[in-house]
Amino acid sequence: MIKITLPDGAVREYPEGTNSMEIAKSISEGLARKVIAANVNGEIWDATRPIRNDASVNLLTWNDAGGKSTFWHSTAHLMAEAVESIFPGVKFWVGPAIENGFYYDMDLGGRQISEEDLRNLEAKMTELAARQNKYIRKEVPKAEAIHFFQEKGDEYKLDLLQNLKDGEITFYTQGGFTDLCRGPHIPDTGIIKALKLTNIAGAYWKGNEKNKQLTRIYGVSFPSKKELDEYLLMLEEAKKRDHRKLGKEMGIYTMDDEVGQGLILWMPNGTIIIEELEKLAKETEQAAGYQRVVTPHIAKESLYLTSGHLPYYQESMYPPMELDGTKYYLKAMNCPHHHKIFAAEPRSYKDLPLRLAEYGTCYRFEQSGELFGLMRVRCLHMNDAHIYCSKEDFAKEFRAVNEMYLKYFRIFGIDKYVMRLSLHDPSKLGVKYVNEPELWLETEAMVRKVLKDTNTPFVEVLDEAAFYGPKIDVQIWSAIGREFTLATNQVDFAQGRRFKLEFTNSENGHDTPLIIHRAPLGTHERFIGFLLEHYAGKFPLWLAPLQVKLLPISDKYVGYAQSVLESLKNADIRASIDDRSEKIGRKIRDTELARVPFMLIIGEKEMNDHQVSVRRQGKGDIGVQDVETFVRDIKSEIKLRS
Amino acid sequence: MIKITLPDGAVREYPEGTNSMEIAKSISEGLARKVIAANVNGEIWDATRPIRNDASVNLLTWNDAGGKSTFWHSTAHLMAEAVESIFPGVKFWVGPAIENGFYYDMDLGGRQISEEDLRNLEAKMTELAARQNKYIRKEVPKAEAIHFFQEKGDEYKLDLLQNLKDGEITFYTQGGFTDLCRGPHIPDTGIIKALKLTNIAGAYWKGNEKNKQLTRIYGVSFPSKKELDEYLLMLEEAKKRDHRKLGKEMGIYTMDDEVGQGLILWMPNGTIIIEELEKLAKETEQAAGYQRVVTPHIAKESLYLTSGHLPYYQESMYPPMELDGTKYYLKAMNCPHHHKIFAAEPRSYKDLPLRLAEYGTCYRFEQSGELFGLMRVRCLHMNDAHIYCSKEDFAKEFRAVNEMYLKYFRIFGIDKYVMRLSLHDPSKLGVKYVNEPELWLETEAMVRKVLKDTNTPFVEVLDEAAFYGPKIDVQIWSAIGREFTLATNQVDFAQGRRFKLEFTNSENGHDTPLIIHRAPLGTHERFIGFLLEHYAGKFPLWLAPLQVKLLPISDKYVGYAQSVLESLKNADIRASIDDRSEKIGRKIRDTELARVPFMLIIGEKEMNDHQVSVRRQGKGDIGVQDVETFVRDIKSEIKLRS
Repeated sequence: MIKITLPDGAVREYPEGTNSMEIAKSISEGLARKVIAANVNGEIWDATRPIRNDASVNLLTWNDAGGKSTFWHSTAHLMAEAVESIFPGVKFWVGPAIENGFYYDMDLGGRQISEEDLRNLEAKMTELAARQNKYIRKEVPKAEAIHFFQEKGDEYKLDLLQNLKDGEITFYTQGGFTDLCRGPHIPDTGIIKALKLTNIAGAYWKGNEKNKQLTRIYGVSFPSKKELDEYLLMLEEAKKRDHRKLGKEMGIYTMDDEVGQGLILWMPNGTIIIEELEKLAKETEQAAGYQRVVTPHIAKESLYLTSGHLPYYQESMYPPMELDGTKYYLKAMNCPHHHKIFAAEPRSYKDLPLRLAEYGTCYRFEQSGELFGLMRVRCLHMNDAHIYCSKEDFAKEFRAVNEMYLKYFRIFGIDKYVMRLSLHDPSKLGVKYVNEPELWLETEAMVRKVLKDTNTPFVEVLDEAAFYGPKIDVQIWSAIGREFTLATNQVDFAQGRRFKLEFTNSENGHDTPLIIHRAPLGTHERFIGFLLEHYAGKFPLWLAPLQVKLLPISDKYVGYAQSVLESLKNADIRASIDDRSEKIGRKIRDTELARVPFMLIIGEKEMNDHQVSVRRQGKGDIGVQDVETFVRDIKSEIKLRS
Repeated sequence: MIKITLPDGAVREYPEGTNSMEIAKSISEGLARKVIAANVNGEIWDATRPIRNDASVNLLTWNDAGGKSTFWHSTAHLMAEAVESIFPGVKFWVGPAIENGFYYDMDLGGRQISEEDLRNLEAKMTELAARQNKYIRKEVPKAEAIHFFQEKGDEYKLDLLQNLKDGEITFYTQGGFTDLCRGPHIPDTGIIKALKLTNIAGAYWKGNEKNKQLTRIYGVSFPSKKELDEYLLMLEEAKKRDHRKLGKEMGIYTMDDEVGQGLILWMPNGTIIIEELEKLAKETEQAAGYQRVVTPHIAKESLYLTSGHLPYYQESMYPPMELDGTKYYLKAMNCPHHHKIFAAEPRSYKDLPLRLAEYGTCYRFEQSGELFGLMRVRCLHMNDAHIYCSKEDFAKEFRAVNEMYLKYFRIFGIDKYVMRLSLHDPSKLGVKYVNEPELWLETEAMVRKVLKDTNTPFVEVLDEAAFYGPKIDVQIWSAIGREFTLATNQVDFAQGRRFKLEFTNSENGHDTPLIIHRAPLGTHERFIGFLLEHYAGKFPLWLAPLQVKLLPISDKYVGYAQSVLESLKNADIRASIDDRSEKIGRKIRDTELARVPFMLIIGEKEMNDHQVSVRRQGKGDIGVQDVETFVRDIKSEIKLRS
């Protein structure tokens, strides 16, 4: 018998050679029907792969990232089977799961794939899936594997085999298709209930443009037709809400070749949103006892040698500026600068927790192929802060940070979110993780308790913590159900020591503070990109670059409109007049299209009664109001950020 | 006869060979008594040097920068005369005027100079000055000059002579001392009425530490004893108000070797001041119709090739970051980025004037020897904006900018200021200045008119404009009378064209906008450095990092103090409680020393009556007030920034 530890800590005994599917069945048949794969000792395995020793097992379903990627990778194999049956002689390179679906690169011997081919492949895949063919794993000696692909005449797989060691080579077979593959895979093709091949592209072999161009077919699949339909609808909606399209249309941001790729120039409308977000952050942080600092965007090499970012993070940093033997680097993070401010004055336990906040601008050299609108950029305005605290204060501080996240989620109408708690792997202490077993367990337990106490949805992931402590990745979903990684929350045991930070404790001794790194609003770039999609550009009143448009029915009323404009401006409301000589219908239409929350129609009656006719974006006419009433109501709505 | 053009445009005729002193006398004897030197065709000349051709002449007195520097340079010669009479055999290197006074570097053959020597030298100088010796200029052939210093055995002057051409060498003699010197000098030593030798230092010959160390004696001089006394008093006061000392004491800023020289880390108290200044700027600019933008701190080389900053400004920039053949530079100015935002959308005359504002952070590589506290730094947070306008709008826009300066001067109690209007030299059109003679005259006249219409004190300086248009340097004086250069205001004809910026004019044609570069609050670094001295750290209420300190007389009243603190915080007032178990007298003294504007003393009576006893910094006890009244009054004072 072997001992299987489940995520809730329960330990059960099973015969040696049991598999995760059997474990699931022993818990409930319903659960077993959902199981796709399993995390066994931190590695994702086939649900049907025998377990020979004591192990920690976390069963994975479609709702787990590891479940989804296994599902999609298996669908890539299914596609390969369909391709081979329709285009015999095809040779395959690699076919991984990606963020949303999968692809497979293949050499079709010069044949072009048409849209019609894709539809035929889909039909074939559906037919093959219905056969419920099992994915069968087989360990294969290297010589046998080479022989197999020599027979098949597939030089791509032979190339892959060169880099694999004998004894660690596995084949997977489903139906009539066998592939060289590390796995894992789903139990059988039957659970692939809905699929779509979404795109065809060229891809150079090994990404090198001197090599042959292969054909890459992209696809996505789901355990039900309903989920596929929802996904396709979401894609269509996401296209309309594409932040790059809206960003340009609404004058939010621009980029310029002479400035550089991934370097955002924020236009006036984008800057208004930035300033509103910063105002929110500053108010929130001030109320939570943070103090603000401002630090330079560069530092000498020695700072990053002390922090350890050099050489470990060097690839993500811009190259240095070198002068008279000194190297300066653009900062890729704000923490080392903040640590220097902590160190600038003697600190006592009475000064702690010290919370230093800065909307710091960092620079990260993302590969140009990775850059994408506001989502992947090289200049990041980060809602950053570092909390220096004693071990005793840690749980309270961490809980307050967590509550700040939840507060922001409410403000932005983010209903779906998950915190991904990344834990250390005890077997890698002193290697991958700072060797403080007790601190690890203690802080992990504290973080877990805070998440539970606040009913925050979270998942735990083994062996993905930072070097210096447990980490929380915050995933949020936009109004149309797309997932975004918003921010990372980190607990840090190590930097305090590297920077020799200390405070005098109540016994007059010296302690090193724990540090919490947090950025609930992420970066302006990613968050505004998210908000553009989330709101489809129809920002709530407090965030809208233009809040009120005044539409005089004719030139006669422009004078009165100007006096109303004055009242609005005096109340710090962003407003302007459409004084074009256009028909009122046209003015209303244009203002709707410009996504302005309020329109005030102004004609004879309104002027005489010192009133305005109010139209609200998405609601139409909401009646006539006194100017004073309108200003008062709108001001209070802005203040509430409702 | 020759024609002499005076600064007011008047043209007078004088015999050929007249000098500036004679011109002054022809205007008034009183004026002639004040004349020290003259600006003749853009070059500073001895007032006694004959003028042979038609010329523009601007008479210089002690109140002109050129007058002061001539006065001080002549005093350096006077000091050399005194040194030579006391220490025969001394050899001289160079003796220039500097920002506040002069120095002379000399080789005393190993002799150390004591404080007593300085007092003796001062006495000797005073004695020599009283003789009213004339400074006599003489053109000397190179061979004769070399012979003179060979005879004297002065290898330093012989070294200087190596780099001078025959025909351009002059000697100046006063009393018994003759020096190799380009001049200019004051008419005679008699006007040096008061002087002080302030410092002795070592200085390597030619600044190279491998060379011999010379003795540098610093001094300063004035046309009256009263001015010297005021200056010495001011120096003493300036020492107390040293922004580096106050900046550390008050937790305003820090620096760190690992971050880098000249790179300021703003501590929480400094950041509060930064944020208040930015709030003021943003409010002011918003009311004046500016729009805000946010741009990255780097750009590709090509941007600065387009702007012309490369190669012309390269020395002041950090070296490039080079990757895959692309060079990125830290920005030393914001204009090119703003031009790109102008260019990002089609612009019509209806969109103009377009005013783009940003508190942009720029990086300039000042030499490490030049770095000085907040005054000379490498990272600058600039109160920047660029106004793109048509020629027709220029005067109105420029006037509005000027009025913004004056508004700020009122807010900060800056009573003394001068705008220095730098004009082009028509003879250098197309060489040093963009070849647009009419635009130069037109904009210079417009700028001059605005300054006159608004009664702004200003001086005009020939041949100091920017390449692309007239420039205004704003000089301000702190409360103790020290002069600071706050900011530069520029009119720009050229960048618009270099960046191919254009707008559609009302006739549907295309025009290039004029650009005004302006930064009324300069940089945070220099302005906060100035304010620290100006206010001696006692910031006005709205700027004070901590505005109110609550001082409970004993622990019994801490609870009530906390409720008062809540009321203050709810009103966004920066306040804290001194809850130490100290006597109230000690608490008051400490709070006075910490320069907090208001103290609220809280005891039995105050608690029972829901009141506070108010003490104001510098005024002492100002009586008992209701909490509500106090909060209301202080809020309104903050709002008024009075």
